[in-house]
Amino acid sequence: MLIVQKFGGSSVADAQRIFNVANRIIDTKNEDNQVVVVLSAQGDTTDDLIDKAKEINPKPAKREMDMLLATGEQQSVALMAMALNALGYNAISLNAFQVQLTTTSDYSNAKIKDIDTERIKRELARDNIVLVAGFQGVNIFNDVTTLGRGGSDTTAVAIAAALNADACEIYTDVDGVYTADPRIVKDASKLEEISYDEMLELASLGSKVLHNRSVELAKKYHIPLVVRSSFNKVSGTVVKEDSKMEKMLVSGVAADKDITRISLLNIEDTPGKAFEVFSILGRNDISVDIILQSIGRDGTKDISFTVAKSDADAACEILEKYKDKIGVGTISLDDNVAKLSIVGAGMATHAGVASLMFEALYDARINISMISTSEIKISVLINKDDVELGMRAIHQKFNLAALNSL
Amino acid sequence: MLIVQKFGGSSVADAQRIFNVANRIIDTKNEDNQVVVVLSAQGDTTDDLIDKAKEINPKPAKREMDMLLATGEQQSVALMAMALNALGYNAISLNAFQVQLTTTSDYSNAKIKDIDTERIKRELARDNIVLVAGFQGVNIFNDVTTLGRGGSDTTAVAIAAALNADACEIYTDVDGVYTADPRIVKDASKLEEISYDEMLELASLGSKVLHNRSVELAKKYHIPLVVRSSFNKVSGTVVKEDSKMEKMLVSGVAADKDITRISLLNIEDTPGKAFEVFSILGRNDISVDIILQSIGRDGTKDISFTVAKSDADAACEILEKYKDKIGVGTISLDDNVAKLSIVGAGMATHAGVASLMFEALYDARINISMISTSEIKISVLINKDDVELGMRAIHQKFNLAALNSL
Repeated sequence: MLIVQKFGGSSVADAQRIFNVANRIIDTKNEDNQVVVVLSAQGDTTDDLIDKAKEINPKPAKREMDMLLATGEQQSVALMAMALNALGYNAISLNAFQVQLTTTSDYSNAKIKDIDTERIKRELARDNIVLVAGFQGVNIFNDVTTLGRGGSDTTAVAIAAALNADACEIYTDVDGVYTADPRIVKDASKLEEISYDEMLELASLGSKVLHNRSVELAKKYHIPLVVRSSFNKVSGTVVKEDSKMEKMLVSGVAADKDITRISLLNIEDTPGKAFEVFSILGRNDISVDIILQSIGRDGTKDISFTVAKSDADAACEILEKYKDKIGVGTISLDDNVAKLSIVGAGMATHAGVASLMFEALYDARINISMISTSEIKISVLINKDDVELGMRAIHQKFNLAALNSL
Repeated sequence: MLIVQKFGGSSVADAQRIFNVANRIIDTKNEDNQVVVVLSAQGDTTDDLIDKAKEINPKPAKREMDMLLATGEQQSVALMAMALNALGYNAISLNAFQVQLTTTSDYSNAKIKDIDTERIKRELARDNIVLVAGFQGVNIFNDVTTLGRGGSDTTAVAIAAALNADACEIYTDVDGVYTADPRIVKDASKLEEISYDEMLELASLGSKVLHNRSVELAKKYHIPLVVRSSFNKVSGTVVKEDSKMEKMLVSGVAADKDITRISLLNIEDTPGKAFEVFSILGRNDISVDIILQSIGRDGTKDISFTVAKSDADAACEILEKYKDKIGVGTISLDDNVAKLSIVGAGMATHAGVASLMFEALYDARINISMISTSEIKISVLINKDDVELGMRAIHQKFNLAALNSL
């Protein structure tokens, strides 16, 4: 079999952990597999490099930032090759230039366009364990790009797709995908499997197990992912097409605290205002999540919506500029909010899921200020201080602790 | 003018020094020049990476070592681009893949074969200050190579040659080339200029100002080098063709303590024995320096020679293997030795230089155990403890302190 494995930065943080991972790779190799391994930068390397850059230039050019950051992953793969050699195994490290992992030119957030698998296949044929630097790519100008935080997951899935691999295993510092963050909900249970769609909702909702784009890519190319811990041998969670007869009502609860609510008050109550606001934001690459529009009163109305906290300042700046043109009275900002969501593929065919969620929150005396739903998820905006309480309340209401024993 | 500048690792060790160098680069740029800058890895980065590798594998594969070490220079150029941007100047960093700096495949000691200047020229035309990662290359397999310690000097000269630059300035932590190591000989004087050949002898004799291959390359392509300090504005030393009417008798005194003397005792006194010994060593890439062969006595003779200390163990291992075949009695090793040398282009046409050197050592009661001479240098092997004393004695005998005022 041909297996692609990805290990995160904390799994290769020091020499001892590198050998720990090397031994896991060797176990897989010894089961008569060909192995391609994607690695992230060691431990805090990326953050340290960012600090170094910011000390020199608070707003470094993204092209130069990518040139700087890509060195972290190159170091990891070289060190891992040395460790595998020390344990008596053939291994070779490759960077983005060497596997011709070409991307778009969106520095710091590039999308993978193509991978030339020729070099990887040649090295596998030579009985090498092939180590590929994650997170990085090369654009049409032959410049270094990076795929954004967590991009190594995407590298692994893309390589698995390009090689038509039999499996893609994502090793991380948790045992798999849980019904809720186990640090918050003590009796959260691990899911044996989850569908791509559910995982996508969970990933985008702030459950930081898998990089969102890696799941999209896995779905597109039908690559089953296994998420498991690099620190123990516990079987992980399989992310794949939804194959179960009985879809789970609710697979998990997720929270996202990194959001800001922006409110536009006293907008002229004439048609097309909301369109105007969101098209301006869209043109500036700012994604809007939950939206609430009040009913018009005295010829004006209010529009509230949430954006990622990192986009909040840019969004306000742009809106201030167009404020008079659009006819907005006041722009106000609130980042004492959080989004709480439940995800489940079975929701679409079961009534009453939303009301059960609202009941759980009501019982816990938590106020809901905005609501948003999709086929397989329900999100509510609540006070940031209520997140943990709400998460536990919902988890219990849906009996998610007993999920695996159902 | 098109100027290539190279700054060493200590010159870019931290953010403050990076800005110091950035300002020097800007000074050059503002004098209406196009500037290409070659940088080494920051401060102790290379040593730290070597330590990291050795912790994992005491004998790491050289290919992987090069993959690891090349990241240091890539970080330096990215950070310098950010600094120049912060100061309001256009700059772009480039690694070996991007300038297609192709080399041989001798990992850790690769030789430059070619540089594709197209990218550099395009960036210069866009008014960019171009920052090229030193020390690294790419071989025919598209793998990363490095040029060996001090290789960034060679990168700078090679780029200057490829671009047909008007000047190549090597910035370091000393003011230039001195008649002797100023830490040992207090009144050593700085040379205003020195010929390529003299510099080559001084470089290979252990005066660590310039990487030897960079001088060879500069000589081959007639690139005048300027060696000067990155910490002050003192004019440095020009290394160029010998143009002076009166060549200097002695330009400098250099010492090399990193050598070992190997003695082969009681070798059969039959023809071809020395040839046999040195051809075995040559086949194993071990360079031999000073050689002394005793006159045969009782049907046997002795051969002594010096090798770099780093080659001593390997040399002994090989010789032990062939000991009986060659007919060597005993192999002995002595690393309490050092080589003291004087260099000067005028030596060839002046008699009495050697005797003056020997007189200086005799006056200082220093015993000479081996002697080697070339057109422009005289080297003697002495006791390691006598090096400083001998250096001062010779420096004084040739009145080198007054050199610049002559």
